[in-house]
Amino acid sequence: MLLKDTRVCIVGIGLMGGSLALALRGKVAHLMGVDRHAATRQYALREHVVDQVSDDLSLGIQMADLLILATPVQTILNLLIDLPRLCPDGCLLFDLGSTKQTINATMGALPTQFQAIGGHPMCGKETAGLLAADATLYQDQTFILTRNGRTTPTIEQLALELSATIGARPLFLDAVRHDRITAAVSHVPYLISAVLMHQAAMLNDEYVWPVSASGFRDTSRLSGSDPRMMLDILLTNKTAVLDQLNHFQITLAEISDLLISKDETALAVWLTKAQQTYVDYRAHKE
Amino acid sequence: MLLKDTRVCIVGIGLMGGSLALALRGKVAHLMGVDRHAATRQYALREHVVDQVSDDLSLGIQMADLLILATPVQTILNLLIDLPRLCPDGCLLFDLGSTKQTINATMGALPTQFQAIGGHPMCGKETAGLLAADATLYQDQTFILTRNGRTTPTIEQLALELSATIGARPLFLDAVRHDRITAAVSHVPYLISAVLMHQAAMLNDEYVWPVSASGFRDTSRLSGSDPRMMLDILLTNKTAVLDQLNHFQITLAEISDLLISKDETALAVWLTKAQQTYVDYRAHKE
Repeated sequence: MLLKDTRVCIVGIGLMGGSLALALRGKVAHLMGVDRHAATRQYALREHVVDQVSDDLSLGIQMADLLILATPVQTILNLLIDLPRLCPDGCLLFDLGSTKQTINATMGALPTQFQAIGGHPMCGKETAGLLAADATLYQDQTFILTRNGRTTPTIEQLALELSATIGARPLFLDAVRHDRITAAVSHVPYLISAVLMHQAAMLNDEYVWPVSASGFRDTSRLSGSDPRMMLDILLTNKTAVLDQLNHFQITLAEISDLLISKDETALAVWLTKAQQTYVDYRAHKE
Repeated sequence: MLLKDTRVCIVGIGLMGGSLALALRGKVAHLMGVDRHAATRQYALREHVVDQVSDDLSLGIQMADLLILATPVQTILNLLIDLPRLCPDGCLLFDLGSTKQTINATMGALPTQFQAIGGHPMCGKETAGLLAADATLYQDQTFILTRNGRTTPTIEQLALELSATIGARPLFLDAVRHDRITAAVSHVPYLISAVLMHQAAMLNDEYVWPVSASGFRDTSRLSGSDPRMMLDILLTNKTAVLDQLNHFQITLAEISDLLISKDETALAVWLTKAQQTYVDYRAHKE
């Protein structure tokens, strides 16, 4: 099945689902958007983000060959549980959920008439919602694909074609490894960012924002993320996040001890190593 | 004394001193750059960053009415200790040091023939050195000024004129308050950024950089800062940094506990509050 002949229904047309719709516009047979917010549906229709909107998932399923779940993780899990009842004949299924183990396990347990693969595009913005959607959001970004018990060559090929169509770089990764890496490079950085924002506010000093500069702007940016989305992520990736937080606390305590004991040499070695790692990381990204 | 009639010597023509030189070019009577690196001096002269260069601070002092110390903090402190000997007649004195309590105390103890004020421009880049210098670096950024026992109306007026000339926004702040706020919005965010970078590298997973996206890019950016500069900052602002680190760890442990106990409601409240603080902060900055 080719993407251009596929009728697509995106469930949740916020930042991620809306950006996907904009990137897929005109490249699929039919594009439907299901969203529970009337204002979002009206905007999506008025701005031709999709061909058709509904608040009724059953209608979306009826209209589509491929269902793409683009809501927060817990909503994806709830939808997956409802799907066998709503869609007894099965369908092609894809998701954009930010954690993959629980979604993958639930997808893998669907009836065999479903063909499903998990997805997680490694991009985003701290601003949620369709108004922030951008057709180029996925361009040149890594799009992780995770196979599960319901993954067939058909859905895998369709997911690869979708990734290519929106200009992303597909990367197959198992769900456990995905969740461990994203805990370190996304979920814990978010929590840390929120704690930094909390600490700055706790100073209760009218000059804290005037004094803050680009360093604070960048380290605190993730604290502006949608709390609902982040809460689902933290709760469905609890083990890996807590493991990373634990290591983070240990390392931070070690650094504090070096500072307390004024161990200038050891501190310099540690800071230089972190800088070198940053240089290696940037070199990889360029 | 007007800035246009002032002969200026900048000691340390790296990112900050070099950017200041570029912003002051043609607006002062004479611009001298003192730097210990031959390559930096050659580049500064060839690119007309300054009118004259030297590796000899005595010569710089001889040529200048206003001396601006733009080196890492510990070097500024060492220079301040040498100044009475190198410059027995005193001079007008300004600095760009990132922490202010120790510098201010040392400045305030100079002989009375010195007229001095502390400065800290709240801007920068993670890339150090003259090659990264930029004439617009100070534009619209907060420039903190801290008075000390050697601050006179003459040097205060000159510092204000300098700030206006480079397009910065002056803000008078006492040194203790400066160091407390910068610990929260700059020094601890730097350490946190370095720990995040360390944690990601410790995963030892070839896919960690491909999976990382803009959130990690921004939260980890400060880890690329010059270790020498940051070490001086941490050591001369040890008390405020350790105090902030301590609070940071307590808050992080509280968040971990909420996650361990799956207290979804309390977590949602906390994350939403952090997001709201971020919104308030951005509103202030716009």
